[in-house]
Amino acid sequence: MADDLLYHVDGDLVPASEATVSVDDRGFRYGDAAFETLRAYGGTIFAWDRHVERLEQTCEALSLAHGLSAADLRERIDETLAANDLVDAYVRLSITRGVQPGKLTPRPEVDPTVVIYVTPLPRGGLEGEPIWDGPATVRSVETRRVPDDALPASAKTHNYLNGILARAELRGTDADEALLSDLEGTVAEGATSNLFFVRDGLLCTPTTDGPVLPGITRELVLELAEDAGVPTREGRYDLEDVFGADEAFLTNRTWELRPIGRVDDVPIGGGPVTERLSRLYDERVEKACYEE
Amino acid sequence: MADDLLYHVDGDLVPASEATVSVDDRGFRYGDAAFETLRAYGGTIFAWDRHVERLEQTCEALSLAHGLSAADLRERIDETLAANDLVDAYVRLSITRGVQPGKLTPRPEVDPTVVIYVTPLPRGGLEGEPIWDGPATVRSVETRRVPDDALPASAKTHNYLNGILARAELRGTDADEALLSDLEGTVAEGATSNLFFVRDGLLCTPTTDGPVLPGITRELVLELAEDAGVPTREGRYDLEDVFGADEAFLTNRTWELRPIGRVDDVPIGGGPVTERLSRLYDERVEKACYEE
Repeated sequence: MADDLLYHVDGDLVPASEATVSVDDRGFRYGDAAFETLRAYGGTIFAWDRHVERLEQTCEALSLAHGLSAADLRERIDETLAANDLVDAYVRLSITRGVQPGKLTPRPEVDPTVVIYVTPLPRGGLEGEPIWDGPATVRSVETRRVPDDALPASAKTHNYLNGILARAELRGTDADEALLSDLEGTVAEGATSNLFFVRDGLLCTPTTDGPVLPGITRELVLELAEDAGVPTREGRYDLEDVFGADEAFLTNRTWELRPIGRVDDVPIGGGPVTERLSRLYDERVEKACYEE
Repeated sequence: MADDLLYHVDGDLVPASEATVSVDDRGFRYGDAAFETLRAYGGTIFAWDRHVERLEQTCEALSLAHGLSAADLRERIDETLAANDLVDAYVRLSITRGVQPGKLTPRPEVDPTVVIYVTPLPRGGLEGEPIWDGPATVRSVETRRVPDDALPASAKTHNYLNGILARAELRGTDADEALLSDLEGTVAEGATSNLFFVRDGLLCTPTTDGPVLPGITRELVLELAEDAGVPTREGRYDLEDVFGADEAFLTNRTWELRPIGRVDDVPIGGGPVTERLSRLYDERVEKACYEE
């Protein structure tokens, strides 16, 4: 892919085209790995402390005691950004359980594999253009979100086939995000994004009591809304609730806030609340990454 | 691990210690890959046609059109066995969706990554010793099997965290296999094995209508039982049904038939039906792999 980039694999900077892991690595054999998707703005990792915290939650859910400090991980990320001369970037940090003797049963002693991926990703921000090409076209899919009792949704892992099957259902449509419901038919989230919608001035989003990833952008948007006096509600909603919304948008680290043009065949679009929250989000990035 | 072995990676035989895949391979990033666990007995892959068929089912479930013929895959396996001078072996065949541009959404055009792992595994068989150290000690766990609506259990993929979480629950106990139930509390299967038990002469096993992998050893055992006039029933059972069994055993390619010593604190053990079916299984292997 991006052969001129350098990735950070197990302590070394290597060209992306030569960046590999052992086929015996549990990250490859079983998807036995945690990851975080981060953004660097102006050379600073945005909301780093929140990523560290969520990574720890994931590793706790997986009983993956990697033994690496947050400072060590951050140093590897900073080294990777510097080596690639990047200030605005997509960053992915993966930590696997490494190679272990035996088969499936995980051993407590872990020699983790740490991979840091980077890709240039220009900031949209207050002055710039958003990185997505227009509003999202969303389709609800048949694939159901994996329930927490099988694999906790709060764990961000390399087991991503559930989202892949959801996205595969979009083949032949013009949709670019799949909307998954849980087994009861309650709307959960997009394959790689959280859902928000606005109804009568109330900002609604599916509760993380259901199988919903506690996205960091999601969390920030809820905080920004509360600070700005926009009423919020985390609840259980069905598709009809979304269809009846005045505005709707998706969030993730890469997209930030992305308005939804349509869900299935129902036009929705952004609007004043979406725009206001997008601006507040950009200002937050500005303050955190450029004014220090 | 086994540094002196040769693996087959993307068409080349390479020492296991140097066998790698790109960190951008979707098999690593997302566990976006199909696999089969096979056994070679006397240089022959046992029940090859059934493995080919199940692999195709998995790839269909994943919309993974790898474009490789069964003959091509078999040739790679045979080459790997020959290069390692192995006749009795554990073989794992993995096919990933490879590296693709873009992020999560799978593209229809696939340049698959094919990995063949081998490890020596002496045959137990009619004359030999089974490969496991005595009967299995099984514990029921809290982790629930992923429902088919989220990820079809008939697909054998690199998304194996559900089984890993189940096995992680065994830490601190003397159990060597975790027994998972589905969300309704119906017994499904072990983390890497299918469950059988005998009650009043009836051979029972959880139905694949639930989230249960259609194991090839499971299928063979059901056929052998029917041929031998042992009544069989594929049904929905709870733990109490298992606790009340006269005999119980687990099946998978590696273990073949392995008696269960205890489930939780309830002693069960093998018995005449388990022994008879084990013998019939060994005879089947004998006939298929040694008498041609």
